[in-house]
Amino acid sequence: MKPKCFILDVDGVVTSGQFLYSENGKKYKIFGPDDADALNILKSYLQIQFITADKRGFDISKKRIVDDMGYNLELVGARHRIKWLSSKWDLNDVIYMADGIWDGLIFNKVKLGIAPQNAFYKTKEMAHFVTKHKSGDRAVAEAVIYILENYFDKKFLELD
Amino acid sequence: MKPKCFILDVDGVVTSGQFLYSENGKKYKIFGPDDADALNILKSYLQIQFITADKRGFDISKKRIVDDMGYNLELVGARHRIKWLSSKWDLNDVIYMADGIWDGLIFNKVKLGIAPQNAFYKTKEMAHFVTKHKSGDRAVAEAVIYILENYFDKKFLELD
Amino acid sequence: MKPKCFILDVDGVVTSGQFLYSENGKKYKIFGPDDADALNILKSYLQIQFITADKRGFDISKKRIVDDMGYNLELVGARHRIKWLSSKWDLNDVIYMADGIWDGLIFNKVKLGIAPQNAFYKTKEMAHFVTKHKSGDRAVAEAVIYILENYFDKKFLELD
Amino acid sequence: MKPKCFILDVDGVVTSGQFLYSENGKKYKIFGPDDADALNILKSYLQIQFITADKRGFDISKKRIVDDMGYNLELVGARHRIKWLSSKWDLNDVIYMADGIWDGLIFNKVKLGIAPQNAFYKTKEMAHFVTKHKSGDRAVAEAVIYILENYFDKKFLELD
Repeated sequence: MKPKCFILDVDGVVTSGQFLYSENGKKYKIFGPDDADALNILKSYLQIQFITADKRGFDISKKRIVDDMGYNLELVGARHRIKWLSSKWDLNDVIYMADGIWDGLIFNKVKLGIAPQNAFYKTKEMAHFVTKHKSGDRAVAEAVIYILENYFDKKFLELD
Repeated sequence: MKPKCFILDVDGVVTSGQFLYSENGKKYKIFGPDDADALNILKSYLQIQFITADKRGFDISKKRIVDDMGYNLELVGARHRIKWLSSKWDLNDVIYMADGIWDGLIFNKVKLGIAPQNAFYKTKEMAHFVTKHKSGDRAVAEAVIYILENYFDKKFLELD
Repeated sequence: MKPKCFILDVDGVVTSGQFLYSENGKKYKIFGPDDADALNILKSYLQIQFITADKRGFDISKKRIVDDMGYNLELVGARHRIKWLSSKWDLNDVIYMADGIWDGLIFNKVKLGIAPQNAFYKTKEMAHFVTKHKSGDRAVAEAVIYILENYFDKKFLELD
Repeated sequence: MKPKCFILDVDGVVTSGQFLYSENGKKYKIFGPDDADALNILKSYLQIQFITADKRGFDISKKRIVDDMGYNLELVGARHRIKWLSSKWDLNDVIYMADGIWDGLIFNKVKLGIAPQNAFYKTKEMAHFVTKHKSGDRAVAEAVIYILENYFDKKFLELD
């Protein structure tokens, strides 16, 4: 059975997880190379959906994910994610990539749970696949290639 | 005996320790994921107090710690911390998390001294517990889970 | 046969690969020490040319590469690079330094392919030379010294 | 013979070496914890002098080093440093801390040459002492403690 959607957390998955604060509040997030290009290939194979629990930095995430990369982004708190995911998809169709302290609970219930190298150490222990690369440093690009090779019989460098 | 308060340094504990300077001075500090969420759980178990020795970056720290996270923050120089701590708490009730060159002296006198992975190397040698994660990259979240598991019989992922 | 030109990607080669986003979009890229000084020596030995696939951050790259360092910079998408390179140079004269998911394909066709330590892991496997240093942290300076020592009989510290 | 002065490079010694560029040019440098506090102790034992080769980022360095930390800072190109140092001090009285590709040449001529962990790899091979910590992450604080312990019979944590 091929997966039907790829759900990605924003902070610590497509960003380094870190954010810069000035005396006026949260101002910058740190993104990295190849992730947007890799997702651009994957999007013809399955649905891509971003979620975030970060209200305060939502406009920063929105600028990158929605305006510049063209994906959907929804605000879903860490504790409500299982319920939210279940209401929209059969969890056996879902690949979920995340890094936070409660995300291991979700890995247990979806088809494939992916954690970046710099995820919380207990969350990594519960992931089905841990990327060699850190978040904001090609973790998503590596996950995309893993998905294409394992579920869609595509070889790296023959992608299209 | 359960600890009664958790004292955290700001820079190098809840930030990466680094700060960005422009030609107008100190402008940004770098914070990371999960720490605020983890403290949000811990605060019903014991008192949480932040301290900092950074006058020049105080308004940046205040914005994050006081305005956005909702904790107390006091300016206490590295050399005056033992006296300040002793005047407010029985040191046997105190968990202290810090990273700097003089913080080992304080670890010797409190119930539990915690250092992040990227603390000064001699300070780490004097800590009772060193986190796997670096500061500004989940060191505080990891410390919170350690405290809940060791002093309050809470299991990770069953936290509330 | 001595190489005649050194083609460098910008992001992830002369930058750390990361970029900072505010709610107004891509704002900063992160550069590092020694790379500009090392290229300044190399430029009397062969032609230096920068290319980038980053449209959105082009003005940031241009400010550093063109205005401040004085090199040519062209916008060439990852998928069009072989054709673009072939139209301008004999590929046997080309040293190419890059880090991204498709760059291994180019390494196969040029005289020398160089990847920084933090390049995509499959790209590193296809490089002829992988630097010890990460991009934005002296990878280019190390590559320059490698080129001078291996193709121009210059010793490190006797460079001029 | 006790050393009489401690000469420090700025970028890659007291900063991480990295700098942030916007489309308007070099805007930020990254500094870290403990270095200023440690130098504050050392300054009663010997003279402290900063030098930099970075013209474009001079005002950023000046804001931190001169205005906020209170030390002298001079613009001295990498190639002119030996001559400049010799004109001002007996090189046997000089401790020099730096990280760049030509700094090994200077290490050979001074009393003590110190490189941070993230210095250029060939420069580290030529240093007398390499810190465990990276620059902008306590390398200078560690160097200060090394100097106080080895030349001034001061023990760590008994410093004053």
